Amino acid sequence: MASGRFITFEGGEGAGKSTQVKLLAQALAERGRDVVLTREPGGSTGAEEIRKLLVSGEPGRWDGVTEALLHYAARRDHLTRTVWPALSSGSWVVSDRFADSTMAYQGYGHALGREPIERLHAVTVGEFAPDLTLILDLPPKAGVARANARRDGEDRYERMDVTFHERLRDGFLDIAAREPNRCVVIDASGSVEAVHAAIMAEIAARFPA
Amino acid sequence: MASGRFITFEGGEGAGKSTQVKLLAQALAERGRDVVLTREPGGSTGAEEIRKLLVSGEPGRWDGVTEALLHYAARRDHLTRTVWPALSSGSWVVSDRFADSTMAYQGYGHALGREPIERLHAVTVGEFAPDLTLILDLPPKAGVARANARRDGEDRYERMDVTFHERLRDGFLDIAAREPNRCVVIDASGSVEAVHAAIMAEIAARFPA
Repeated sequence: MASGRFITFEGGEGAGKSTQVKLLAQALAERGRDVVLTREPGGSTGAEEIRKLLVSGEPGRWDGVTEALLHYAARRDHLTRTVWPALSSGSWVVSDRFADSTMAYQGYGHALGREPIERLHAVTVGEFAPDLTLILDLPPKAGVARANARRDGEDRYERMDVTFHERLRDGFLDIAAREPNRCVVIDASGSVEAVHAAIMAEIAARFPA
Repeated sequence: MASGRFITFEGGEGAGKSTQVKLLAQALAERGRDVVLTREPGGSTGAEEIRKLLVSGEPGRWDGVTEALLHYAARRDHLTRTVWPALSSGSWVVSDRFADSTMAYQGYGHALGREPIERLHAVTVGEFAPDLTLILDLPPKAGVARANARRDGEDRYERMDVTFHERLRDGFLDIAAREPNRCVVIDASGSVEAVHAAIMAEIAARFPA
């Protein structure tokens, strides 16, 4: 890939990802970067159609394996149609969620374990990886309370029990511990400005202009 | 699984699968079996929704890997909602296509190779396998001509070139050669009655009443 960078945001519900993704994209654009702001599941025409299957309907509509397969199908479309072309043309791509979410939600949260997710990952993503992953960390109770404060119709995950959210958080922290070069855990309990400042400090350290 | 049997039909376009699936289901029902007639992609509510993503739209809409992931997502839903419950209750399940189609179309036809499909298979299906797979075999030119004679709106595959259909046929024959206990190749160039008779002979040999 040319000079583009791929930066992903991860974390549980209510950690402020979508706000921080936008603030980072804006800050990078102000520094003269060509920025593509995207999200998962989704981020391409086909992936957004698959997203509709994932976020609507009853909880338990898909079993954990089916859900993981649908996420990886959407991811493959997102990579081939949006992420890889943008990186090749030198853009910086900032994504609200990527593969760590499938590992955390289906692998840890729904307890499928790491192995099936790693197999799907090998087929779909191969050796490609984000240049930086920012994991916004918040105690589950605080995150679910924040998430419940905004109702947007896509609330399947928020309705799950608190032990699920604890497994999820442990999952993200375990992922970060396994790949310390790629992942940084950001304390998301502070103000929007404080979290954004912590992210920008990390960006400055990783990618000197 | 209880006393149910899982019988799958495979093969290229125009080999007469849907006709033969129905004739077999009817013959088994006449012998007093409880029969579930199903198909892939599809066969359950969720899988039929995924099928819509696969069979509509432009050829090349999904890359080969995305297509394989969507097929396996549909397959997992089909297995968990339809096939496994039916087998557990003692039904005979007859399916118009199953996993060999993904191996033949994406693995051989689109030349992804066997390995990625085997990985998806391990995650989605595990050690479970059909009790019998009937591969309806026909020279590609004859099959495409037959398929073109019926236009049903789901014609993405039929429009592909003849070398694709040759790779597909070679794929099915290779699959059969690798698993001779599970797979039987049936010459599909004869009349509907002749092909049905060959299938019934195979059923009688495999599953004595």
